[in-house]
Amino acid sequence: MPELVTNETLQSVLDHIDQNQGAAIERLQSLLRIPSVSTDPEYAQEVHRCAEHLAQDLRSIGLETTVYTTKQHPMIVATDDSAGPEAPRVLYYGHYDVQPVQPLEEWHDDPFEANVVEGPRGPRIVARGAADDKGQLMTFVEAIRSWKAVHGQLPIRVVMLFEGEEECGSPSLEPFLHEHKDELLAETCIVCDTGMWDVDTPAITSRLRGLVYIEATLRGPSHDLHSGGYGGALVNPANALTKILGDLHDDQGKVQIAHFYDDVNEISEKQSKQWDELGDADALLLESSGAKATFGEEGFTTLERLWARPTCDINGLFAGYTGAGAKTVIGATATAKISCRLVASQNPQEVQNNLLAFLEERTPVGCSWEIKSFGVNPAISVPTDSPWLAAASQALTDTFPNPAVLIGSGGSIPVVGEFQEILGVDAVLVGFSLDDDLIHAPNEKFELSCFHNGVRAHATILDKYASIQS
Amino acid sequence: MPELVTNETLQSVLDHIDQNQGAAIERLQSLLRIPSVSTDPEYAQEVHRCAEHLAQDLRSIGLETTVYTTKQHPMIVATDDSAGPEAPRVLYYGHYDVQPVQPLEEWHDDPFEANVVEGPRGPRIVARGAADDKGQLMTFVEAIRSWKAVHGQLPIRVVMLFEGEEECGSPSLEPFLHEHKDELLAETCIVCDTGMWDVDTPAITSRLRGLVYIEATLRGPSHDLHSGGYGGALVNPANALTKILGDLHDDQGKVQIAHFYDDVNEISEKQSKQWDELGDADALLLESSGAKATFGEEGFTTLERLWARPTCDINGLFAGYTGAGAKTVIGATATAKISCRLVASQNPQEVQNNLLAFLEERTPVGCSWEIKSFGVNPAISVPTDSPWLAAASQALTDTFPNPAVLIGSGGSIPVVGEFQEILGVDAVLVGFSLDDDLIHAPNEKFELSCFHNGVRAHATILDKYASIQS
Repeated sequence: MPELVTNETLQSVLDHIDQNQGAAIERLQSLLRIPSVSTDPEYAQEVHRCAEHLAQDLRSIGLETTVYTTKQHPMIVATDDSAGPEAPRVLYYGHYDVQPVQPLEEWHDDPFEANVVEGPRGPRIVARGAADDKGQLMTFVEAIRSWKAVHGQLPIRVVMLFEGEEECGSPSLEPFLHEHKDELLAETCIVCDTGMWDVDTPAITSRLRGLVYIEATLRGPSHDLHSGGYGGALVNPANALTKILGDLHDDQGKVQIAHFYDDVNEISEKQSKQWDELGDADALLLESSGAKATFGEEGFTTLERLWARPTCDINGLFAGYTGAGAKTVIGATATAKISCRLVASQNPQEVQNNLLAFLEERTPVGCSWEIKSFGVNPAISVPTDSPWLAAASQALTDTFPNPAVLIGSGGSIPVVGEFQEILGVDAVLVGFSLDDDLIHAPNEKFELSCFHNGVRAHATILDKYASIQS
Repeated sequence: MPELVTNETLQSVLDHIDQNQGAAIERLQSLLRIPSVSTDPEYAQEVHRCAEHLAQDLRSIGLETTVYTTKQHPMIVATDDSAGPEAPRVLYYGHYDVQPVQPLEEWHDDPFEANVVEGPRGPRIVARGAADDKGQLMTFVEAIRSWKAVHGQLPIRVVMLFEGEEECGSPSLEPFLHEHKDELLAETCIVCDTGMWDVDTPAITSRLRGLVYIEATLRGPSHDLHSGGYGGALVNPANALTKILGDLHDDQGKVQIAHFYDDVNEISEKQSKQWDELGDADALLLESSGAKATFGEEGFTTLERLWARPTCDINGLFAGYTGAGAKTVIGATATAKISCRLVASQNPQEVQNNLLAFLEERTPVGCSWEIKSFGVNPAISVPTDSPWLAAASQALTDTFPNPAVLIGSGGSIPVVGEFQEILGVDAVLVGFSLDDDLIHAPNEKFELSCFHNGVRAHATILDKYASIQS
């Protein structure tokens, strides 16, 4: 339980949050029911509808809200400067787009019905985007709504940026940040796309891995062939692709792309020790993944592998006949979607070039590659000694049973780097998802307790930020 | 052009065939317009409809025709014993089922519209099943139709067997042959599922490769995972599967399954020389496949690789996200459809066991396999010194510009082995498809000249078979 709060200004906001939980859940459900899948062009209208829906909600709170069109999906900027020019200005970031739902048949409910169902930790909301990121962005939207409802104004100045392209590589983000730099001016920034250590232990994330993602298609014959009539006498692209991809890792789990580890820093003993003390990461990983064993680069712990070591993963693979039953075919092409998670000062463009060279060097006789790149992003660290991070950490500690901890993340949130580079502002990464929220997978969910405590924590952060001298 | 035929009985049949080409093409089109895809349960009704359609046509010729139900798709038996008990009895085999049409988007026309279009060698009929096997089975059906139309009876006794499960492993064939052994009694058998050497050169196939076909699914975590949150810390089944399958061949193209080559015979110098003399097999292969280079087991020619060496091919591959764009996912499973073509005395069951052991030995930590088997068939040779083969060869030589040649086939026709084993009858494999007929691929076609000459050749075979003393 949170410790006794003596600050009456804040307490009245927290009370308002507690008393209006039902309405907050309904608003989240409305948002989740819009299938804003940004990677699939067929859903473009829905992404747009979702932006308008969210903007309308922000206006109803009293924020000055603009929906900006981009070449792909809209950006929303919402501001409230009523706290006056002396108050610190904080940028909030979230994304209202979601991942595709495939494989649809593995969902127990419609991914866009957003049902509340009872789970082992109490009620949860099940939907694509529940935890990534609609449920998370609504934690600070609801906190701000309650502050406005109770006090008519906010204790700090606020500017919110919501994008609809996070799941498809954020193509419009960089130009948008350059163009709207003045509008987005802030002393600090809160990004809500991260998780907790466990349901009782809030966390602030201070390092994120980067990402390189390509799709590589190996082309052999000009058309699919009968495997009887041709098998054994020419290159089968599926055979060749597996042989090439099979070389990506050695038997110790090390990635074999040239220069892959050149810019990877050693992990300090102090860092290693702090992570060890967090708890049994292996047990958490196995429980939330349903895997029977951990596995990875030899000589590293699970948290080191996730937060401080780069990876190479095949995210998709298809060739030949993929329907039911047997078809004796040699497919004309074989395709892999391949991504690398990057750490420290690895240069994503160089990693991508080396990955492409890895493939190119192994091109089978008479075959050719078709390559698509889905963007490159470096790994990111944020300062861990800022007053903003300390205040947010205290707010989390005030809200949850256990004190807040400092963690890393295996995922990538490229916007954090863009904010550093273009706006000159460091992010504080505060989020409330759990490892078993099934982000990017069927049956994604968000615990209502995480949602509710997240709203309370953000209300508290607003209060604490008001007293920081920038 | 065919040489002058002095036999008036036959000549009047050939004239009838020439004069009724249009109607024969229309009958083939009607048959091709029924989508009798046997591997996909959704098409079961269409397979059944196709059987009834073909049976009705056989009855219209005057054959006593029965459609037998099986556990899956119907068998058709049609007989004509009007030539009397002294005449030889010949079993004809064909299959009226077809392969799936995927990838549908690569077809220039609807695969079941059966359009006649102009090609570089004259008109061709484009449809799934055009060459495999509806167009082929209609060559002898039309020959028999013309014999009956002109002379009211056939020169030999005929029993035809048509199955609807050839493309899905023929599960009902063996029990059916046992049960209907007496009805199918014959001195020889003609199987029409093979090809010519080239458009001017007819061929008889004397050896066929066997087949083992499995689907192997590697399962890791219990559900799809976010590749950021989990990548590097547990087994990604797609990574692991490519590593395992990448081991299937060494760098010289040799298959690495244990004991794979134990029962493979050396190729005799004489055999090797005969194949070399057939012509430029590499050029034919590259032209019909659109591949830029031949490739295979080191130390063997293309025809040796296709006809006398076993293979292992990945016929299908799927894992993770296979849609458009990028999804940062680690799929819970990764699946491969894998087949081996077998030669000589390789035991298919042993090869399958060794393939499964190959996978099992490489099972990654904490993962498990789900295996489906789609049937096992041995390689087959037929005697090359029989009077039936000699007569058929002469009939082909009479019909086409070049003399008939003796070839092998890289494909499998399990029924040939079943006929040997259960009915005690050796097949003569006569077929009229070309290497570029795109069998099992989009835009499958059958040259109308092959169809027409095939009908003429079968009419001539009937005539020559009448004078063989069995």
